[in-house]
Amino acid sequence: MSSKGSSTAIDTIAQEANDDPEAGTLTDGFHLVIDALKLNDINTIYNVPGIPITDLGRYMQAEGLRVLSFRHEQHAGYAAAIAGFLTKKPGICLTVSAPGFLNGLTSLAHATTNCFPMILISGSSEREIVDLQQGDYEEMDQLAIAKPLCKAAYRVLHAEDIGIGIARAIRAAVSGRPGGVYLDLPAKLLGQTMDADAGAKSLVKVIDAAPSQLPAPDSVARALKVLKGAKRPLIILGKGAAYAQADNEIRALVEKSGIPYLPMSMAKGLLPDDHPLSAGPARSLVLKESDTVMMIGARLNWLLSHGKGKSWGDIPKKFVHIDIEPKEMDSNVEIAAPVVGDIGSCVQALLDGMGENWGAPPADWTDAITAKKETNIERMAPKLQNNNVPMDYQGALGVLRTIIKERPDAILVNEGANTLDFARSIIDMYKPRKRLDVGTWGVMGIGMGYAVAAA
Amino acid sequence: MSSKGSSTAIDTIAQEANDDPEAGTLTDGFHLVIDALKLNDINTIYNVPGIPITDLGRYMQAEGLRVLSFRHEQHAGYAAAIAGFLTKKPGICLTVSAPGFLNGLTSLAHATTNCFPMILISGSSEREIVDLQQGDYEEMDQLAIAKPLCKAAYRVLHAEDIGIGIARAIRAAVSGRPGGVYLDLPAKLLGQTMDADAGAKSLVKVIDAAPSQLPAPDSVARALKVLKGAKRPLIILGKGAAYAQADNEIRALVEKSGIPYLPMSMAKGLLPDDHPLSAGPARSLVLKESDTVMMIGARLNWLLSHGKGKSWGDIPKKFVHIDIEPKEMDSNVEIAAPVVGDIGSCVQALLDGMGENWGAPPADWTDAITAKKETNIERMAPKLQNNNVPMDYQGALGVLRTIIKERPDAILVNEGANTLDFARSIIDMYKPRKRLDVGTWGVMGIGMGYAVAAA
Amino acid sequence: MSSKGSSTAIDTIAQEANDDPEAGTLTDGFHLVIDALKLNDINTIYNVPGIPITDLGRYMQAEGLRVLSFRHEQHAGYAAAIAGFLTKKPGICLTVSAPGFLNGLTSLAHATTNCFPMILISGSSEREIVDLQQGDYEEMDQLAIAKPLCKAAYRVLHAEDIGIGIARAIRAAVSGRPGGVYLDLPAKLLGQTMDADAGAKSLVKVIDAAPSQLPAPDSVARALKVLKGAKRPLIILGKGAAYAQADNEIRALVEKSGIPYLPMSMAKGLLPDDHPLSAGPARSLVLKESDTVMMIGARLNWLLSHGKGKSWGDIPKKFVHIDIEPKEMDSNVEIAAPVVGDIGSCVQALLDGMGENWGAPPADWTDAITAKKETNIERMAPKLQNNNVPMDYQGALGVLRTIIKERPDAILVNEGANTLDFARSIIDMYKPRKRLDVGTWGVMGIGMGYAVAAA
Amino acid sequence: MSSKGSSTAIDTIAQEANDDPEAGTLTDGFHLVIDALKLNDINTIYNVPGIPITDLGRYMQAEGLRVLSFRHEQHAGYAAAIAGFLTKKPGICLTVSAPGFLNGLTSLAHATTNCFPMILISGSSEREIVDLQQGDYEEMDQLAIAKPLCKAAYRVLHAEDIGIGIARAIRAAVSGRPGGVYLDLPAKLLGQTMDADAGAKSLVKVIDAAPSQLPAPDSVARALKVLKGAKRPLIILGKGAAYAQADNEIRALVEKSGIPYLPMSMAKGLLPDDHPLSAGPARSLVLKESDTVMMIGARLNWLLSHGKGKSWGDIPKKFVHIDIEPKEMDSNVEIAAPVVGDIGSCVQALLDGMGENWGAPPADWTDAITAKKETNIERMAPKLQNNNVPMDYQGALGVLRTIIKERPDAILVNEGANTLDFARSIIDMYKPRKRLDVGTWGVMGIGMGYAVAAA
Ligand SMILES: Cc1ncc(C[n+]2csc(CCOP(=O)(O)OP(=O)(O)O)c2C)c(N)n1
Ligand SMILES: Cc1ncc(C[n+]2csc(CCOP(=O)(O)OP(=O)(O)O)c2C)c(N)n1
Ligand SMILES: Cc1ncc(C[n+]2csc(CCOP(=O)(O)OP(=O)(O)O)c2C)c(N)n1
Ligand SMILES: Cc1ncc(C[n+]2csc(CCOP(=O)(O)OP(=O)(O)O)c2C)c(N)n1
Repeated sequence: MSSKGSSTAIDTIAQEANDDPEAGTLTDGFHLVIDALKLNDINTIYNVPGIPITDLGRYMQAEGLRVLSFRHEQHAGYAAAIAGFLTKKPGICLTVSAPGFLNGLTSLAHATTNCFPMILISGSSEREIVDLQQGDYEEMDQLAIAKPLCKAAYRVLHAEDIGIGIARAIRAAVSGRPGGVYLDLPAKLLGQTMDADAGAKSLVKVIDAAPSQLPAPDSVARALKVLKGAKRPLIILGKGAAYAQADNEIRALVEKSGIPYLPMSMAKGLLPDDHPLSAGPARSLVLKESDTVMMIGARLNWLLSHGKGKSWGDIPKKFVHIDIEPKEMDSNVEIAAPVVGDIGSCVQALLDGMGENWGAPPADWTDAITAKKETNIERMAPKLQNNNVPMDYQGALGVLRTIIKERPDAILVNEGANTLDFARSIIDMYKPRKRLDVGTWGVMGIGMGYAVAAA
Repeated sequence: MSSKGSSTAIDTIAQEANDDPEAGTLTDGFHLVIDALKLNDINTIYNVPGIPITDLGRYMQAEGLRVLSFRHEQHAGYAAAIAGFLTKKPGICLTVSAPGFLNGLTSLAHATTNCFPMILISGSSEREIVDLQQGDYEEMDQLAIAKPLCKAAYRVLHAEDIGIGIARAIRAAVSGRPGGVYLDLPAKLLGQTMDADAGAKSLVKVIDAAPSQLPAPDSVARALKVLKGAKRPLIILGKGAAYAQADNEIRALVEKSGIPYLPMSMAKGLLPDDHPLSAGPARSLVLKESDTVMMIGARLNWLLSHGKGKSWGDIPKKFVHIDIEPKEMDSNVEIAAPVVGDIGSCVQALLDGMGENWGAPPADWTDAITAKKETNIERMAPKLQNNNVPMDYQGALGVLRTIIKERPDAILVNEGANTLDFARSIIDMYKPRKRLDVGTWGVMGIGMGYAVAAA
Repeated sequence: MSSKGSSTAIDTIAQEANDDPEAGTLTDGFHLVIDALKLNDINTIYNVPGIPITDLGRYMQAEGLRVLSFRHEQHAGYAAAIAGFLTKKPGICLTVSAPGFLNGLTSLAHATTNCFPMILISGSSEREIVDLQQGDYEEMDQLAIAKPLCKAAYRVLHAEDIGIGIARAIRAAVSGRPGGVYLDLPAKLLGQTMDADAGAKSLVKVIDAAPSQLPAPDSVARALKVLKGAKRPLIILGKGAAYAQADNEIRALVEKSGIPYLPMSMAKGLLPDDHPLSAGPARSLVLKESDTVMMIGARLNWLLSHGKGKSWGDIPKKFVHIDIEPKEMDSNVEIAAPVVGDIGSCVQALLDGMGENWGAPPADWTDAITAKKETNIERMAPKLQNNNVPMDYQGALGVLRTIIKERPDAILVNEGANTLDFARSIIDMYKPRKRLDVGTWGVMGIGMGYAVAAA
Repeated sequence: MSSKGSSTAIDTIAQEANDDPEAGTLTDGFHLVIDALKLNDINTIYNVPGIPITDLGRYMQAEGLRVLSFRHEQHAGYAAAIAGFLTKKPGICLTVSAPGFLNGLTSLAHATTNCFPMILISGSSEREIVDLQQGDYEEMDQLAIAKPLCKAAYRVLHAEDIGIGIARAIRAAVSGRPGGVYLDLPAKLLGQTMDADAGAKSLVKVIDAAPSQLPAPDSVARALKVLKGAKRPLIILGKGAAYAQADNEIRALVEKSGIPYLPMSMAKGLLPDDHPLSAGPARSLVLKESDTVMMIGARLNWLLSHGKGKSWGDIPKKFVHIDIEPKEMDSNVEIAAPVVGDIGSCVQALLDGMGENWGAPPADWTDAITAKKETNIERMAPKLQNNNVPMDYQGALGVLRTIIKERPDAILVNEGANTLDFARSIIDMYKPRKRLDVGTWGVMGIGMGYAVAAA
């Protein structure tokens, strides 16, 4: 009995693929997948090999893709997820069926939750056996299992549909609100052959995969009106703002408006944490005391106590919310001014609409924040320089804080519980997208994959 | 043994609701649902009564909502679906749990597939029994069952969340690409009481539920460039174009561009079917011979043979595609110029971009179409006036054709197989949204509900 | 444009099937389905025709199956469901894809909930288009949608697997606890041809589809011990007991034990409702006052108030539970003596174990019940003979009561709310499986299908 | 901002639980879970701590349960899965929500696929937030996600239902065909308090969790008749046979019948691999040449090439299949004699039915097997003693082979691809359930968890 996972299978390049009678006249599923990825400028693959995608990984390498292989799919998956965040192109994770797929699924769900573009490509077993539930090797209806945990899920059955399948996956991952996409490649598909010319024609170059979405002018006007009426305005920057790579526009908006801002953990560094308008060290105060809050690429989820309750104090708030996904509006509380569009376009439209004479917020508000910040920073300072034995969180992270200050381009990957909480407030960031952490779900295990992909 | 479906339960207004010690100081789930709907200008409800929503229907009537009750949920559901199409506000269908919910689900899936905004509100049984699968009355995890068949699905557990729940449902139904939304109201929720003032404050008025989404300027430029390069251009209008209620802009675009157009069945009448640029009676010709096709609110699904194959001929096509949903792009074939945004905004942007001197398409192309149209119309004419006994489809529909011509405001609801195919080509429409038919899935049974809602 | 639902498609018998060059040497998917059903003694099909199963229905008729066609799938579905209950063979409902499938799904879920063996066979669209979600005619991943609502779900992709697919569906429907099974037949499968001999060999005659499952001897002993210790024992007969067709054994058990019994609504008539041991008219009393309850094919669901709470009184109960499904045990309350096996075998084992000298329950218990019964019957009697104008429920049902008494073989199908509650207590049944009603979910709409299938 | 994953939350024992004013009068969700497990003799928990189950793990330890904590849920999960296999009691894996749950889900699916009894208990977030999808900490509808990958899934909402919930989970895991069960414990449940006496009464001691299921006597007779007619019979023992712990009966059946047997990989050692009737080393021969095959706790899945095709040769086979799950019958090929029941009872019934004079199979069959075995063993022998440098699989495993021979009680955990294939044929096992490997799905990563649980 030779297990399907045996060396024979893993070591042999599939026959179909080799048997091209005249080189160049036929292509196959393996190469169509590779060509489709390349055509769309996708060059890096994070994978764990095995049936039925061992040969796919091998061919990918042979064809010049960068294939980074791991021993557990979670690392490949988290690497792909964060690569998507950093590059705005879908990160690709490639796995085997059933258990490999399920291991990878955690990271796909993580990508979806965090709005990172990622494609999980998994091999799958024979459709006819799976659909009759006859116990195929690693049998599972992966497509159905993946659907609730991703933005879109596709399965390709014929070689001539590989081009369109990959195009759809890419577009789904990056357009609108980005997220995880599942692409199912049944074992038999990869070995299918077809005429090479027809194959080349079947490929699809995705045009304008993530088109700008401009906000409605009246929504911009409404937002500006709300902001103008504010006595104690606040801006909250989320990781969506970091993702947008509209760093200059965002900085301009904060500075032109003079409104204090709070960065969510992965938005730290979008403006340097020592920026005068940063309200980070006065977080409790600004949440409680603000009367108007503009969310930019941040969600009113648990990380912001759902926009209500004790941490938001008793003062009634008006929310301006900038997000590409209209369904995010009113998700937790009423949004007075929804601005739906991509963040770059929305921020630009606000800047344009503010005109030249936008007045700064009342000084008592900004002064109160500054005062609070200073007190808090002062109080923390000595702790960060302690030399306690054994070392404590503050002492250790105080050292890291200095390192990052000196080398602001370094990327900080942050897991843990205390380590997470302390590092977030202790370590200042100075550049966008340099702090990568456990994200919306607080997932343990992201570290190795993140570090590899960010390197 | 008294069944939960018994008259006792149906006839008695729930005690909790009645027992307000001081009128006006308490409200309950029933009234919060009603108030939330009213606040958002939703006034018509299509339902089939029964536990646990009998009293809800009754209170709705008492509070001035228009409640149209049916004997089978499919009629209530299709009525809600088409009401959504006609009004751009979500049509509401209200049902009992498990079997009532499942009966209604067909229409919810139909709404989603057809991109009609609709909310299916179903009562559901006790969460604690359902989750332990202990066999509650009409036990079912309706939320999980609904999810794959709708755009969004929510369940509300506390009275104070009714406002936000209904706001989310409304926004999800109409924003972006419209579709079906499921809202689950557990029996116990409806009887929950809370302070009336707090209740009133918990309601959410949805602001700008379906904001305009403006296309990226470069995507508009790209589209115009493709159109300009065309020798044999064609416009296809889908029911999304009819939904948009941008009738004037669409007509202006067709006429300014001089490009022949083909209306999908529910887009008939957007321009009158006897418009000189209508290519309806030359359908086979234009699909085959065109070199550039601009889709406006139509999808390249089976109704258009997926944009490829025999009916599209051998001439390579370039597609311009206008749709609010970016994932629609490349769904079947490569899209040379995706234009993502709401149809009104996109069409306006194209009009603006065309400037004053846009040239008409080559005359040989438009002449060929006109010639073909005339031949086809001529050939059909005598059949439509036959007096065969027994009456045949042509004879019968020929009569209807005349009636609609005389009364172009009449609404035509069209089911059936032959009746559908023949009527589509025989009966000309002259006004937008007057032809309502079986839609993308070709569903039998839509007739009664559609007719009631359209009346 | 010819809709897929057009007359052409409906009227033409598929070419592949006709084109057998030499009759008898080839067969096709259509005929393999038919032959597989026949081989397993399935002769009646309830359907609504349409693409892609129009021709299948037609061939079925041509091949001698009894095809009963309806205008709405719910009737076909409920007919199949109740046919399964009455015959212990799976009732077959055949539908078209997406909307037809969904309409049928309500009845499949109903069958599963009621433990009726039924197979919903639906045609489905092209796999490659559905899996890429490209908008096929009636596109839907029906297999995934059906799974949570049925006992088993299979899809057959190759003609040579039709035999095994139908065998699995049959066995799954009737073995263990019976239920609904979904069988997905993609359009292309039906037209596939294969060698007729190989086809014949590929068919599977299901051997012993629902084998007896004998209870563990120690579980029988435990149950008898509990019964023996009872002072106020009660037997509850459920529709599972009616399904089992072990009428003599069940009657023998009741009579030998001398224990009063309560029939659930579809178990009425298993023993005649005027049997001296019937506790039907003393329902409240026996639920409250009993100390030991033996459930036979009944579940402690909402219809029995989950085995706890007010209607069960304060006296601690011991439950003996006979069911083929071990997971039913402890579903709502602790089961002191689970007896897992098919009802016929379990009842026989109990009878065997009781020996010759089993003592009747204490007379004060049975006397109290008899007294209560007589009072209740007496009180009801005059109401049943009223001639009120307008007629009331009691008067109308009183007449029906007499008719059934005179013609005990008549089948009574019972829908409604009041009609249901009143008829259940007013109309006595005298033969097993003559009362068919809305079942566990109380579904409105079962009437026509039930009546047709029962006729 | 303090993340929910922060040390504060992890370190503090929940207040509710501590605050019992008078010890002993109140209990809470934490303790009800623990007491329910203990009452049912479950003493070991495999977990990864975190919100919301940190305190649960801690209390478990305090109350004397054996809590083995890991850094990744896969190890906890595989440990639980294999513990279930070895003990016939459900192995318990305890995880946090969303990512922890998903990580554990791979092992739950693995348990289900392998028919190992296991319960995955995961904490989950606030129902009201999850159901409205408002972005709770680790928000996910875990119940819905788990369902397709396990035998049963339950969620408990009230403290008084913890007893019944755990009882159901246990019974579902071990009764019938064993498998994975998911149990969802929302965060709030654990802190709920209730009267301690009522709490104690609410617990459920599962009686006869996995009752014997005796086969139908006629099915046993049918099986014996088929066996009697065989010229070249074969027995295949699967891991279900190992699970059954009916070692003596199985050995007696093989020996009394004189039929050669083939052990599947985890059934090795059920009889010692050097037993004269073992056909292991003649696998290809017996699959091809046998005319009758009796499957005992093995499935005709991919590991047995689905019971057809090349490896099964041309000789028509008759299958006798012993399994507790009737749906397994005919899953891949027609079963001539299904015997449905638990393996111990079925094997015993066959032994009883064989009587005293059961004749051995024809000698030419058994002689051919013996000859083949000897040749194969002889050919392999020298390879196992090679001293190649670098060491090769044969050399390395040859050493292990000797060790296991000398210490047959040692447990062998086997992962890998080549390592798996070679070790299976090289290393003889002498005792039941001493070889633990990657199972039906060939999952990489089972090693550490298995080893810990088996230790
Ligand atoms: C996949 C996953 N499993 C479990 C958890 C629960 N969890 C949150 S923090 C944490 C441990 C943190 O320990 P460590 O890394 O030592 O943290 P620190 O010293 O920073 O507090 C765990 C297991 C999680 N967030 N994700
Ligand atoms: C819910 C549903 N069930 C079944 C079908 C399949 N179907 C398509 S057309 C049709 C019948 C049409 O009959 P009729 O209305 O008499 O049509 P016509 O005379 O127009 O051909 C059916 C049953 C469907 N489209 N929808
Ligand atoms: C499919 C479905 N929809 C709705 C209901 C809710 N329901 C229960 S009884 C009933 C109406 C009963 O009316 P009628 O048949 O006139 O009853 P009766 O005179 O017997 O009270 C309804 C709609 C249901 N049980 N099933
Ligand atoms: C979770 C999971 N991921 C991936 C695979 C695919 N797979 C099968 S064997 C194997 C690697 C085996 O490597 P190693 O353990 O070095 O094997 P050996 O030397 O025994 O061949 C992998 C990755 C799998 N079976 N399970």
